[in-house]
Amino acid sequence: MLELVSKTQSFDGSQCQYRHRSDALDCEMQFSIFLPSQAEKDQRFPVLYWLSGLTCTDENFSQKAGAQRMAAELGIALVIPDTSPRGDSVADNEGYDLGKGAGFYVNATQAPWKPHYQMYDYVVKELPALVEANFPVSDRRAISGHSMGGHGALTIALKNPGRYTSVSAFSPICNPMACPWGEKALAAYLGADRTLWEEYDATVLLSRATAKLPMLVSQGEEDQFLEEQLKPNALKATAVAAGYPLKLEFHAGYDHSYYFIATFIEQHLRFHADFLLHKD
Amino acid sequence: MLELVSKTQSFDGSQCQYRHRSDALDCEMQFSIFLPSQAEKDQRFPVLYWLSGLTCTDENFSQKAGAQRMAAELGIALVIPDTSPRGDSVADNEGYDLGKGAGFYVNATQAPWKPHYQMYDYVVKELPALVEANFPVSDRRAISGHSMGGHGALTIALKNPGRYTSVSAFSPICNPMACPWGEKALAAYLGADRTLWEEYDATVLLSRATAKLPMLVSQGEEDQFLEEQLKPNALKATAVAAGYPLKLEFHAGYDHSYYFIATFIEQHLRFHADFLLHKD
Repeated sequence: MLELVSKTQSFDGSQCQYRHRSDALDCEMQFSIFLPSQAEKDQRFPVLYWLSGLTCTDENFSQKAGAQRMAAELGIALVIPDTSPRGDSVADNEGYDLGKGAGFYVNATQAPWKPHYQMYDYVVKELPALVEANFPVSDRRAISGHSMGGHGALTIALKNPGRYTSVSAFSPICNPMACPWGEKALAAYLGADRTLWEEYDATVLLSRATAKLPMLVSQGEEDQFLEEQLKPNALKATAVAAGYPLKLEFHAGYDHSYYFIATFIEQHLRFHADFLLHKD
Repeated sequence: MLELVSKTQSFDGSQCQYRHRSDALDCEMQFSIFLPSQAEKDQRFPVLYWLSGLTCTDENFSQKAGAQRMAAELGIALVIPDTSPRGDSVADNEGYDLGKGAGFYVNATQAPWKPHYQMYDYVVKELPALVEANFPVSDRRAISGHSMGGHGALTIALKNPGRYTSVSAFSPICNPMACPWGEKALAAYLGADRTLWEEYDATVLLSRATAKLPMLVSQGEEDQFLEEQLKPNALKATAVAAGYPLKLEFHAGYDHSYYFIATFIEQHLRFHADFLLHKD
């Protein structure tokens, strides 16, 4: 059951927020969806899923990335989930990088996180099924995200290459096993056994990938988190060794903010459109 | 003296926030400025001043309108002031529509507002002088804004046609003497004598205008404030009677939000570019 929270027009399409009960997360969730204007009544759009970064909700990307312009032009729907389970019954932590707003797109196995923090299942299975049953969209999906959400997009695509046509990321956490954000979150959600963390580390997953997806990563050179947290060169080195088709682009002058995303979102949407819109 | 608060790259240009001491407002103020990338070292850009609506700061337009893309392409600088004086010494009111965040771009004459609430002088004189002395911009100016800021843009342009090449507005308060927002604010800032309010009412000022500026107004038909607060048809009727070149466009489906602005900001920037970039 979907409850409409807000609806506004944007670039002749509709930008909406919905609430629903999530079985995977065992709580009420909110997500945003942008649907381009339909030229024909039975038109169905492919979907780009956007995973947001630490502290975000479904609103940051919707309001700040300016993605609707190109999504409307290309005929791509955008679906933007929240970044963690929500509500009074959901465990939290005082840090901005653990608990609410910081689900890291994993299925938690540890207390107190386990019952609700199942964002991997939510994003991979429950949300697409809900969206595809209730909106004029097709089952052609691409996935992208920013920072923690870039990590989510890369890991989810690498684990499910058959479900997505293409993957991209802005400033992703590429090797969470080897950075403070990732080590803190993966230890909390998955426990002390680091071998279990490998299932949620894009660099490790890429080294083992058999199927190959088109992959675009954009990184600002003035990003304050680049050296300590993001480590795109670890991903790049692994991709080169594995012959994986990663296109990693560094951009001089850009930082970690949505101003960077807004500048290059057109490029990312056009990249995905090449695969989303053309059946092989 | 300008103090840099933040600087980020956007569409190859720079998006910055500065703080400075305002003489007109007798307090510290913050504004945002977007400067396109300079093709030549001595290049000077014309400036579009953007006046924001109730409750806004310099950040709303900067983050949500997506204006930098076209500003960069056209070679136009954007300057976005705050919407009122700020600081602990500045009078305020518990309403969102009076006091801080609600300066209405007037020079207040009444206590407790008078000493600081001189937003008209700040926007018309002090801020442009500061900007033109410190940044690579020319003295060619256009002005636009949203809601209360649309009221500000229209009234300031109508009172100072020689200072601007063109004016536009999204969802402006067109006839503040005849709507609740305007009556509350103008009575508080200017006192009970309604003849003094006429100096800050776009519909009245337009009826008396001698010089004519290119003027574009965009209004969403699903705007929740359209009937009670905005009254664009009052402005239109006056413009028709006066032979004033107002282009008023209604857009089906759009509301009062920044999603509306983001959809049509390209049109507004191209409108201003026709006058800002071409000397007569």
